[in-house]
Amino acid sequence: MPRRRDYAIDHRLSDDDENIHSAWDNSLDPVLTVEPGEVVRFECRDAVDRQVGVQTTAEDVPDISFDPVHPLTGPVAVEGAQPGDVLEVELLDLQHKGWGYTAFWPGEMDLGLLPEDFEDPGLHVWDLEGDVGHFVDGIEVPLDPFPGVIGVAPDEAGEHDTLPPRSVGGNMDVKHMTAGSTVYLPVEVEDALFSVGDCHAAQGDGEVCVTGVEAPMFVTARFDVRSGMDIEQPQFETRGPFTPTGRDEPMYGTTGISDDLMEATKKAVRQMIDHLHEERGLSRGEAYLLCSAAVDLKISEVVDAPNWTVSAYLPESIFP
Amino acid sequence: MPRRRDYAIDHRLSDDDENIHSAWDNSLDPVLTVEPGEVVRFECRDAVDRQVGVQTTAEDVPDISFDPVHPLTGPVAVEGAQPGDVLEVELLDLQHKGWGYTAFWPGEMDLGLLPEDFEDPGLHVWDLEGDVGHFVDGIEVPLDPFPGVIGVAPDEAGEHDTLPPRSVGGNMDVKHMTAGSTVYLPVEVEDALFSVGDCHAAQGDGEVCVTGVEAPMFVTARFDVRSGMDIEQPQFETRGPFTPTGRDEPMYGTTGISDDLMEATKKAVRQMIDHLHEERGLSRGEAYLLCSAAVDLKISEVVDAPNWTVSAYLPESIFP
Repeated sequence: MPRRRDYAIDHRLSDDDENIHSAWDNSLDPVLTVEPGEVVRFECRDAVDRQVGVQTTAEDVPDISFDPVHPLTGPVAVEGAQPGDVLEVELLDLQHKGWGYTAFWPGEMDLGLLPEDFEDPGLHVWDLEGDVGHFVDGIEVPLDPFPGVIGVAPDEAGEHDTLPPRSVGGNMDVKHMTAGSTVYLPVEVEDALFSVGDCHAAQGDGEVCVTGVEAPMFVTARFDVRSGMDIEQPQFETRGPFTPTGRDEPMYGTTGISDDLMEATKKAVRQMIDHLHEERGLSRGEAYLLCSAAVDLKISEVVDAPNWTVSAYLPESIFP
Repeated sequence: MPRRRDYAIDHRLSDDDENIHSAWDNSLDPVLTVEPGEVVRFECRDAVDRQVGVQTTAEDVPDISFDPVHPLTGPVAVEGAQPGDVLEVELLDLQHKGWGYTAFWPGEMDLGLLPEDFEDPGLHVWDLEGDVGHFVDGIEVPLDPFPGVIGVAPDEAGEHDTLPPRSVGGNMDVKHMTAGSTVYLPVEVEDALFSVGDCHAAQGDGEVCVTGVEAPMFVTARFDVRSGMDIEQPQFETRGPFTPTGRDEPMYGTTGISDDLMEATKKAVRQMIDHLHEERGLSRGEAYLLCSAAVDLKISEVVDAPNWTVSAYLPESIFP
């Protein structure tokens, strides 16, 4: 039996131009004002603002500008939120629109974890069907959608790039901020000025090629204001999922051991790309895309000086 | 009904002095030679070589030397293993001895992730009962034992410190190398020269205070030699567990956002210590110990330049 909604939608925001902005800026006029407890359904554009469609190919990728990253829906003013408060955002539902994409850009553009390893661009356009995304060779990635960008306006005046995450949230890309999760954001300006976008239908911890499964989506959220909570950067409650099947399952792991965490991360991912190429028959470009969509990076130890261990985990359940 | 062993033990190695060494050194004589396919049950000492017992207190910690880190059991020669091969180690069983400890040293000793935050030492001695470890305030941490150190001798001559992990393995502290897992180690010297030790009854990804739940233990493993596998650093297969309950469950998350992965890691852990102190009533020292034993660090994104997101995950099921 289909799930029943146990909440009412108080407001809807379309992804029309008047509701979209692409920089953090506390001087923007809110497009909507809500009271604590109210529920808003946001329509969100994809990360590169409709430059990709279902017929886009890898050859088109170099022409895709990173400039409109990220079109965000909002800002929404939450009445009563004051600097020093915390905005509580309960994520009630995320609904994709049937397709998404994962891309990496040519190495010379210096995007992603391994630009030096990939001279040419790569792209996979995913058919999203229900809670499954279709990759190549029958590989199916479960969908656990979340907003890559979720945040409030910073106190500092002016326009701020949406690419880096900040203390007020933004492009955190925390894949466990799924439906059912609650996100806590430190408020820096009156009425918080909340915005959301850059939704991912799935992503590996790390998002190594700079895109998850990017997808236009609807995000439904309930807002509340907490005044007794003291946080410096965003916090959250989640029920995962922590594996594709939601329970323990076989994973293949690679380690990256180095005296630098970034280098350790690169080593673990390179070894995973080798594994996917040699053992699973993917091209290196396909492997890089799949790592970004479905391989999780964990910091295994960060104390055994002078070398740290970062590990990459590939769920075997995604293979046919 | 109790589990039945489906393998036979071919050899046993006690933790007596003649089977223990505390440096990686390819000139050490093997204490045992095995054929591929054979099973060895290793008795392993704890990480600081019996300087801690069930009656040790935090006041004793500054006197605990880090010098004998780590007493390892071995080396075991595996017949036929040649440089360029891979040693396959199937972990069949890990059995603790009923107690363990988690400690951090005074800040001036510069050990662990946050020495600057903790001037005084800390210690918790755990009662280990079956598959549960007992912390303070009724907090129970499920036990998923693994060897913190598992590796083979490096090609480079001389004695090498066991503290940092290396390309041949060693102190990787990958918590998912549990019973049922298979670890692949790159062989650099003839007969591989395998050693194991530093067992942890539980650990969070990150091992932030420099100790997991350190525990003397038995490790049972089957060895094989793979010649067609090309790996640069250790790899592994595992079934987790990926959460304490083995399935999706509520977690509390903190984020650390910074342009440096190490700084992002520190921020996420500091915020989790604050959370455990303020919301769960633990002292900051207890919180630091619990993070090391049960909080997992994930790299959420490492591509949204110039800021990266590291997240720390606290399982709520460990609380009464």
